Amino acid sequence: MNWCRYQDGDQVVYGIIDGDTVRAATGEPQPLSSVSLRLPCIPPTFYAAGANYRAHLAWAAENLGGSGKAPPRADIGYRANNSLLAHGENIVIPRDSTGVVQVEGELAAVIGKTVKHLTRENALDCVLGYTIGNDVSERTWQSGDRTLWRAKNTDTFNPMGPWITPGLDPEELEVTTRINSVEASRYQTKDMIFSLVDFLVETTKYVTLYAGDVMWMGCDGETPVIKAGDVVEIEIPEIGVLRNPVVGE
Amino acid sequence: MNWCRYQDGDQVVYGIIDGDTVRAATGEPQPLSSVSLRLPCIPPTFYAAGANYRAHLAWAAENLGGSGKAPPRADIGYRANNSLLAHGENIVIPRDSTGVVQVEGELAAVIGKTVKHLTRENALDCVLGYTIGNDVSERTWQSGDRTLWRAKNTDTFNPMGPWITPGLDPEELEVTTRINSVEASRYQTKDMIFSLVDFLVETTKYVTLYAGDVMWMGCDGETPVIKAGDVVEIEIPEIGVLRNPVVGE
Repeated sequence: MNWCRYQDGDQVVYGIIDGDTVRAATGEPQPLSSVSLRLPCIPPTFYAAGANYRAHLAWAAENLGGSGKAPPRADIGYRANNSLLAHGENIVIPRDSTGVVQVEGELAAVIGKTVKHLTRENALDCVLGYTIGNDVSERTWQSGDRTLWRAKNTDTFNPMGPWITPGLDPEELEVTTRINSVEASRYQTKDMIFSLVDFLVETTKYVTLYAGDVMWMGCDGETPVIKAGDVVEIEIPEIGVLRNPVVGE
Repeated sequence: MNWCRYQDGDQVVYGIIDGDTVRAATGEPQPLSSVSLRLPCIPPTFYAAGANYRAHLAWAAENLGGSGKAPPRADIGYRANNSLLAHGENIVIPRDSTGVVQVEGELAAVIGKTVKHLTRENALDCVLGYTIGNDVSERTWQSGDRTLWRAKNTDTFNPMGPWITPGLDPEELEVTTRINSVEASRYQTKDMIFSLVDFLVETTKYVTLYAGDVMWMGCDGETPVIKAGDVVEIEIPEIGVLRNPVVGE
């Protein structure tokens, strides 16, 4: 059973997916293929763990000028809501992009309640479920700008979806990225440097998490280049496939 | 005439302030001093311009290890909604803070409508009005952590208010900070390196702004130290005073 948000006439409603059908709390079941999915949640705060896999750090050191060293602590980062994009919608590459735009397929945890001062024992109890994120990145802006604002937060640069799946082990998943149906990257979430528990415990020493907050866990392996005309798919089999076409502005 | 949000029984309502009275859209006027103000808006995205005044850059170079050079472009940054705090509420210093917590009084612009690709001529038309922000900063964490997550986004570290004032010139204001009624800092917004127009035009090349988004403009001058027991006031005379007591966790 998965949870989603979808367009129902003029409204966006929450729905429960059961096999090939979806129904809102008060509605009749309808075919999942007939509805237009929206973002599975609108996060009050959009957290993102950068630099959380060793092979990605090594790649970043070579291509973006990082040190390649693992961070000493689970220091969370942020993305911005304007950049969120639903499953099926178009990733738009800005007209003045210098050309190197890459995708980072990620596991994303969705918070289900207000929590602070979590312990290692109870941390995962606050997680409603999991979805998939694609942290699209303009690499020239990423290495040259003072902040990550446009490199990682340009409109449409953070597809998230297709829905929220409860009951998974966040360290036992495989993330596969395909460009135009051809596999371009595959990695295991067990290779995270800091686990979701590490980030939840460290973050909530200082920060209250709220229902709908999301925490993206970073990516490992190759980060494939995309261009207008491509279709990107990120798959975590226990969740599903996040699919987005790419167009030019 | 100023706009605010305040607690009215079990609800938070929008109100219009006229002199010493406030009224909700459908209500009777009541004394402003009798209501509990809430955050003037809940931003979909919380933008913040760091490094936007020369004297502050020079101070940061000496105390936090920056270069002291002005950034080459108006690259916006972010803060997180969990850290927002209303006028009158307590700034809480975490128990494991290393001791150096400072305040940064700032002008904040509140966006009033959905906009992209603004021009220099129409940029300020999207601004609903102005409020005051206090970018509380734990300096040891700021210089040591990989991101600004806890240094600038710990719960209660971003007081904002007391209300929204329309019709101001953002480059003709004076920002004064007082600790326990003693003036500790004073600067002029005309000394911004990049103006609000610069940030609005540059940001909306890539990013859609939405009603309720806020853009904090950075601070100049001294950034006074606070400790438990203090009361901080940030004043911009054309807007009002943002006042918050400081307590220990």
